[in-house]
Amino acid sequence: MSGTASQAAAGTLRPIDWDPTGAWIRVLDQTRLPHELVFLDVTDVDQLIEAIGRLAVRGAPALGVAGALGVALAVRTLPPDAAAEAITRLRAARPTAVNLARGVDLAASAIAGTAPGPERDEAVLAVALALRDAEIAASIALARRGADELYRVLPDRRRLALLTICNSGALAAVEHGTALAVAEQVFRDGRLDRVIACETRPLLQGARLTAWELTRLGAPFDLIVDAAAASLIRRGLVDAVLVGADRIAANGDTANKVGTFALALAARHARPAEAGGAVPFYVVAPESTLDAATPDGAAIVIEDRGRAEVVALHGVRIAPDGASALNPAFDVTPADLITGIVTDRRIIHPANPR
Amino acid sequence: MSGTASQAAAGTLRPIDWDPTGAWIRVLDQTRLPHELVFLDVTDVDQLIEAIGRLAVRGAPALGVAGALGVALAVRTLPPDAAAEAITRLRAARPTAVNLARGVDLAASAIAGTAPGPERDEAVLAVALALRDAEIAASIALARRGADELYRVLPDRRRLALLTICNSGALAAVEHGTALAVAEQVFRDGRLDRVIACETRPLLQGARLTAWELTRLGAPFDLIVDAAAASLIRRGLVDAVLVGADRIAANGDTANKVGTFALALAARHARPAEAGGAVPFYVVAPESTLDAATPDGAAIVIEDRGRAEVVALHGVRIAPDGASALNPAFDVTPADLITGIVTDRRIIHPANPR
Repeated sequence: MSGTASQAAAGTLRPIDWDPTGAWIRVLDQTRLPHELVFLDVTDVDQLIEAIGRLAVRGAPALGVAGALGVALAVRTLPPDAAAEAITRLRAARPTAVNLARGVDLAASAIAGTAPGPERDEAVLAVALALRDAEIAASIALARRGADELYRVLPDRRRLALLTICNSGALAAVEHGTALAVAEQVFRDGRLDRVIACETRPLLQGARLTAWELTRLGAPFDLIVDAAAASLIRRGLVDAVLVGADRIAANGDTANKVGTFALALAARHARPAEAGGAVPFYVVAPESTLDAATPDGAAIVIEDRGRAEVVALHGVRIAPDGASALNPAFDVTPADLITGIVTDRRIIHPANPR
Repeated sequence: MSGTASQAAAGTLRPIDWDPTGAWIRVLDQTRLPHELVFLDVTDVDQLIEAIGRLAVRGAPALGVAGALGVALAVRTLPPDAAAEAITRLRAARPTAVNLARGVDLAASAIAGTAPGPERDEAVLAVALALRDAEIAASIALARRGADELYRVLPDRRRLALLTICNSGALAAVEHGTALAVAEQVFRDGRLDRVIACETRPLLQGARLTAWELTRLGAPFDLIVDAAAASLIRRGLVDAVLVGADRIAANGDTANKVGTFALALAARHARPAEAGGAVPFYVVAPESTLDAATPDGAAIVIEDRGRAEVVALHGVRIAPDGASALNPAFDVTPADLITGIVTDRRIIHPANPR
């Protein structure tokens, strides 16, 4: 069965995992993709924070697992006070994705009230590994639910052209992923026309990572510059838009990679009514990305990653010396533009908020 | 007076002009900007077609002048039959911008009914140079009209944040430009907060050319990735969107750099009503870009420039081997999303079509 083979294959590219022989974290350095497949042995928390900061590991579910494994690493490599301090810095390494802080908190909760020692170390690690396995299971569940939802709302389309941004595949999770996992499921069901992958400037997660995953999978896709998405939707080339999420507020407002909001606007408004009108726009994320403590999008911190990523590309300077730049890494899509939020447990229709 | 100084300075960077001493066309190779200022001596039509094809010279008004000067070059360098054949190929070198074919036709009309010889060569050249001068005059007129229109529709904004895409400055015209010329005028009027320049993938005309022109001018600007525009509009950071045009159909539908349509959608829909609602969206172009012979956007040919520009950047491969790509170079913004079309003669409100 192809699902089993795929899971085995996907297992070989887990972007983050615990290395039981070395007792450290093994991270696939995503900044080197698609050109090189390089794994890092992350043996201390500072190294993990650095890897997170430069996006060697990224994607909300993967960051959650990174946070939990980082706590496991901290308790076994540092004295208690230093471990606590490192855990605090790890928790704040990136502000927008809720999963990072949540993964840290989950594993840290296993520290409280236990004495230092191998037994505690194993207990913390067990919590982190359980989170890893839960994210894998969540990916499988939401992929199936998302695919079935597409077949339900697009009954007249035998094959689907699915537009996405950034990378929300196995590289963003642990296996399978979120939005891209739905496209993978549609492909396995024999119903994928193609994925249309936005390249996702500035860091090109679409061109580098999504294209790499789809090539590996053998699934048909076309890469586009981000600015082309709206006109392709207008021209009827897109059946649905699927995106991941970094944080979903209680009212359904969703923070995700910058450009997601523009896609939501295009899905709603680009296609003329006489050509079919709005295109379905789905957010796909595990329950672990829902943040009931954040009331709405206005309360979500948007990370600005500075000018360097905009004025250069792969080390090649593209703008004049001294050019100023704004670089918001995320944007917020208001709930009313979201057709549905597909999770591992349910489909939320933000028009009927939780 | 700064205007005079600027015009002198701008004169030194005319992206295209006739070199009277050499009797050939002098082209600023825009593919080398912002890193190198390289002028090409274009001594035959094939060389000009090649320069147009690789976007060494680009921008609708500049392409019109290139077309006219190319005809002047053809008649003096080729026998009549070969000249006619070269002129036909020149006319078709790029399909979307109406100015190229129109500039060719204008200069070619001076050939008809005259005998070959120096007198005819001079007559054709005179027509081409008159077009050049008319485009410069048009830029000055539309810049003033556009700035005044902004002050009129945004009376409560002392300084304006103007978002634009691609390059519509002097490099796209001969001097001053179109949309960016309006921003330049606002700057000279002391009323520019800043330009927000979309980098404009795939060929980065915003990052390379607009940023270079604004740096040269000393005008404040921020560069952004194209996908960030909608969220900045939503956050209230943009007072108006100004874009150039490659072809404006009779009903006001406008072809321009891919991404323009997404900006028009964002200008109309991104900002919540309680924050002020729609942002003005202006197309700025000389009358020479209006194409009464094209009834609407559906009749405009959109050039697809192939996958190479998407899968690589400045020669650096960014996607996996074999990745497929779509690369529409332009899109069409429907007339109903356009607040006004500012030309050198008037402001057209497409809701009241010509």
